[in-house]
Amino acid sequence: MTPTREMLRRDAAYDRWGEAHVNGQLGAAAERMLEEELGTGEPLPPVPLDAVRIAPGAPIPEAVVAAAGGEDALSTDDEDRIRHSGGKGYPDLIRMRRGTVECAPDAVLAPPDAEHVAAVLAACAEAGVAVVPFGGGTSVVGGVEPVRGPFERLVALDLTALRNAIVDPVSMTAHLGPGLRGPEAEAALNSEGFTLGHFPQSYRYATIGGYAATRSAGQASSGYGRFDAVATAIELTAPAGPIRTLQTPHTAAGPSLRELVLGSEGTLGVITDVTVRVRPVPERKLYEGWFAPSFPDGIEIARSLAQGGALPDVVRLSDRDETRVSLAMSGLEGAKRRALETYLRLRGRRYASSGCMLIVGWEGEREDAERRREISRRVLRSGGAVPLGGSPGSSWEHGRYEGPHLRDLLIDRGILVETLETSHVYGRLDELYAAVRSALADGMSAGGGRGIVMCHVSHVYRDGASLYFTFLTAARAGAEIEQWRGLKAAACEAIVGAGGTITHHHAVGRDHAPYMRSEIGELGIDTLLAAKERLDPAGIMNPGKLLG
Amino acid sequence: MTPTREMLRRDAAYDRWGEAHVNGQLGAAAERMLEEELGTGEPLPPVPLDAVRIAPGAPIPEAVVAAAGGEDALSTDDEDRIRHSGGKGYPDLIRMRRGTVECAPDAVLAPPDAEHVAAVLAACAEAGVAVVPFGGGTSVVGGVEPVRGPFERLVALDLTALRNAIVDPVSMTAHLGPGLRGPEAEAALNSEGFTLGHFPQSYRYATIGGYAATRSAGQASSGYGRFDAVATAIELTAPAGPIRTLQTPHTAAGPSLRELVLGSEGTLGVITDVTVRVRPVPERKLYEGWFAPSFPDGIEIARSLAQGGALPDVVRLSDRDETRVSLAMSGLEGAKRRALETYLRLRGRRYASSGCMLIVGWEGEREDAERRREISRRVLRSGGAVPLGGSPGSSWEHGRYEGPHLRDLLIDRGILVETLETSHVYGRLDELYAAVRSALADGMSAGGGRGIVMCHVSHVYRDGASLYFTFLTAARAGAEIEQWRGLKAAACEAIVGAGGTITHHHAVGRDHAPYMRSEIGELGIDTLLAAKERLDPAGIMNPGKLLG
Repeated sequence: MTPTREMLRRDAAYDRWGEAHVNGQLGAAAERMLEEELGTGEPLPPVPLDAVRIAPGAPIPEAVVAAAGGEDALSTDDEDRIRHSGGKGYPDLIRMRRGTVECAPDAVLAPPDAEHVAAVLAACAEAGVAVVPFGGGTSVVGGVEPVRGPFERLVALDLTALRNAIVDPVSMTAHLGPGLRGPEAEAALNSEGFTLGHFPQSYRYATIGGYAATRSAGQASSGYGRFDAVATAIELTAPAGPIRTLQTPHTAAGPSLRELVLGSEGTLGVITDVTVRVRPVPERKLYEGWFAPSFPDGIEIARSLAQGGALPDVVRLSDRDETRVSLAMSGLEGAKRRALETYLRLRGRRYASSGCMLIVGWEGEREDAERRREISRRVLRSGGAVPLGGSPGSSWEHGRYEGPHLRDLLIDRGILVETLETSHVYGRLDELYAAVRSALADGMSAGGGRGIVMCHVSHVYRDGASLYFTFLTAARAGAEIEQWRGLKAAACEAIVGAGGTITHHHAVGRDHAPYMRSEIGELGIDTLLAAKERLDPAGIMNPGKLLG
Repeated sequence: MTPTREMLRRDAAYDRWGEAHVNGQLGAAAERMLEEELGTGEPLPPVPLDAVRIAPGAPIPEAVVAAAGGEDALSTDDEDRIRHSGGKGYPDLIRMRRGTVECAPDAVLAPPDAEHVAAVLAACAEAGVAVVPFGGGTSVVGGVEPVRGPFERLVALDLTALRNAIVDPVSMTAHLGPGLRGPEAEAALNSEGFTLGHFPQSYRYATIGGYAATRSAGQASSGYGRFDAVATAIELTAPAGPIRTLQTPHTAAGPSLRELVLGSEGTLGVITDVTVRVRPVPERKLYEGWFAPSFPDGIEIARSLAQGGALPDVVRLSDRDETRVSLAMSGLEGAKRRALETYLRLRGRRYASSGCMLIVGWEGEREDAERRREISRRVLRSGGAVPLGGSPGSSWEHGRYEGPHLRDLLIDRGILVETLETSHVYGRLDELYAAVRSALADGMSAGGGRGIVMCHVSHVYRDGASLYFTFLTAARAGAEIEQWRGLKAAACEAIVGAGGTITHHHAVGRDHAPYMRSEIGELGIDTLLAAKERLDPAGIMNPGKLLG
């Protein structure tokens, strides 16, 4: 038997995003802007790993350990327990930096395959041990927090060992194991000439199982489709047994169990296999920057692209504040900055005063990508956008997974920074945008601080689009989590009030669970709970998440 | 109050497809071919409506009638009860023609709006009255049969009065009432410049509620998307209350309740509102015919079109037998037939011996449709297909809703005719095709009759395609339904054995319910039943369907 415990990944930093050696610093322009707009925060350096305090773990019943594959599949090391004590949301990072991880799993289990997962779940149900399925640990909504619920013991079930990848090149589908990280899945597919085309910001660490459990969306999902649109079949290993949906391109055989398992966030069982549609590795990736006259104009352009069938594979429209901050953060200074400003002014005063950055990209066979680019460009131009060429596109591509590192640098500097996202139909998108912006701005100023709220559209559909907000304010040292909670609640209430969804792709986890009643209603929740009770009669699966 | 009972549609023939005055006859070539290949059947003329025997209806509790809106919403006329006693499957038509409708609803209720639907369901749950939601009555799988289950009384709940249509032109979405028939929905949308693009063969009579409840697919669904792909939000009025999913373009907020309601076939409650994505009315519809060298070659072409991103909006590939029979049925004779044969022979012997008809179509703005046609044509040519021009395309368009009328003419003539459909990934499509074909051919010859089995691909996806089979054999007079049952079972078992889905778009109804265990497994069924028990605790909703 493989010593699966040894597979637990310790390459990542425990207290920040990504690998331990990744570092960086804010540029001078960014520092200046933050100083001017937010003032000086109190730096928050992390404590060393061995200073992180956790309570000793309760012993795990022998039957559970045996079911997982024996001692080789078990870790009770403090380091592994700490690394499995949460995701990468702002509160997770604060707790880790302060060294006050109050809850950690009693142990980490790393079963070698799906059969052992089934055995573990049966043993845990029998023994009354709560189970948190654990993939990349990148949740930003408390999706992997070790909430015990009514149970005295809790294990994190690390799925690292489940990393199968079997490609069917004729059907252009692949079976992928839940433990594959984004780059591992891509490497397996690329070697046969295919790509999943799924590149969320968490791509380097998030896993296939996590994509499925949270209905992930990637940066190119306007083109390739969200994860729930490319997943054609799924295997759920629940405490009550397995559900395997048929692998056919489509079926009319009743309600979709696949769509019941997608988004279930580990509360129904463990996703042990996902079948996905894949595509040929694109011959070309063409990304470029444009400047829309304003955010509403940019949204109109996105709508025209989508509704006219000319949608690029990547569309990312920043609002005025995000455009301004991005330009400062990018370190575009001096002559280059002035050249951009002159270029925009020459095209019309409004571009310099209210213009918004738009990144668009096309992927595929050269001829096809170029043809589609030509069609999109016509729509962009007729919507009043002006081209900035390939350079902003390359910058975006280069930095597309860097956002979370930037967050760490801001937290270092004593800044509270959080992102949240929603979506709505075009007819109500402006209302939703205004509501969330004011809720955050008001919340920050009521807290006595200055703040920045910025937003971008990251996913575009025929009927509407997503909105992705980032907000920054000086953190209240020692009360960061309370401060965060107040601002997050204000934003969530604004979203609910404007009829948007509580989450477009971050999922529900623990943070959004209180809003599920607004999202799907009392009876909707009860219906999902009825399904859960059948699949997980003991209620051991990921307590406190999704439905609370 | 509107006298909703008066809205019950009596324009249709009770004993055949479509409107009472629609008639027609088989051409001489078709008659000759049937005579040669199947022999003479015993004609089966229908009995007049007033000779159809039904048992008297049990009285409906007053509270139920009051909840529906009073006497105006109630019909206990034999004619209405007969018209609501089944769908339009082969067994339905046979029972009607023989005048032996054993089961009919005790009454037909036609509530004026969703509020009255809610009240009716509550009253029926209280009084123990089974409810069969009834839209266009076009089910071919026993989806609206009045199966009483444990209940002594049963009503058909006719949704004809629920015909709202509210368009949001900015978001390009529309709320549609469940009672709208295809052409009514199109008319409402067309008047604002939009189309649903959903054109199943049942289009003229099937309703929006039926599309949603059965996961309908239309002839242009390769382009516009199946109904479950265009439905973005749904309202279910269940006995336990309402579920309304949020109208946003996409959400990651948990398992999809929309996808639980889609395909629920009236077993969870009544679908009282559907929000759909709509598209601009296409400026052009370009349909044309091609001839593929063989059925496998044609499937390879379809696969290339789909996987290369050059998929037309309509793709319909007939196998060799369907091509042969269609040409005979179309009445293409004499000089025209000889000209086609000469044309094909000149392009290669194989076209005349194994060639298969392919109908392809592109819809949209002129320039866009033409450009996409050009790209598809290249793929068609490089796959070895030869063009037949626009005329087969027009013939197909002209006759696209005529199949069920043809079925009536065949039944008149004593022929058993049935269709069934499935889908699979490309890697296993040939296995599925061969299995179903032999099962049907063997079944027909074992019954001592000669038969014709034909097939076409009607819906094409990146990972696979649907297969739609039609089979004909001389009916065994007086034992048609037993004969049908044997052949249907043989085909279903072949589908299950080859790993195909039991239905790609006809839905489950009563006929496919025994195969759901193979489709989604024991635990899958139990999970759906748990959801049903929560939504319909008394079990009154459409007994005997879907999960049996």
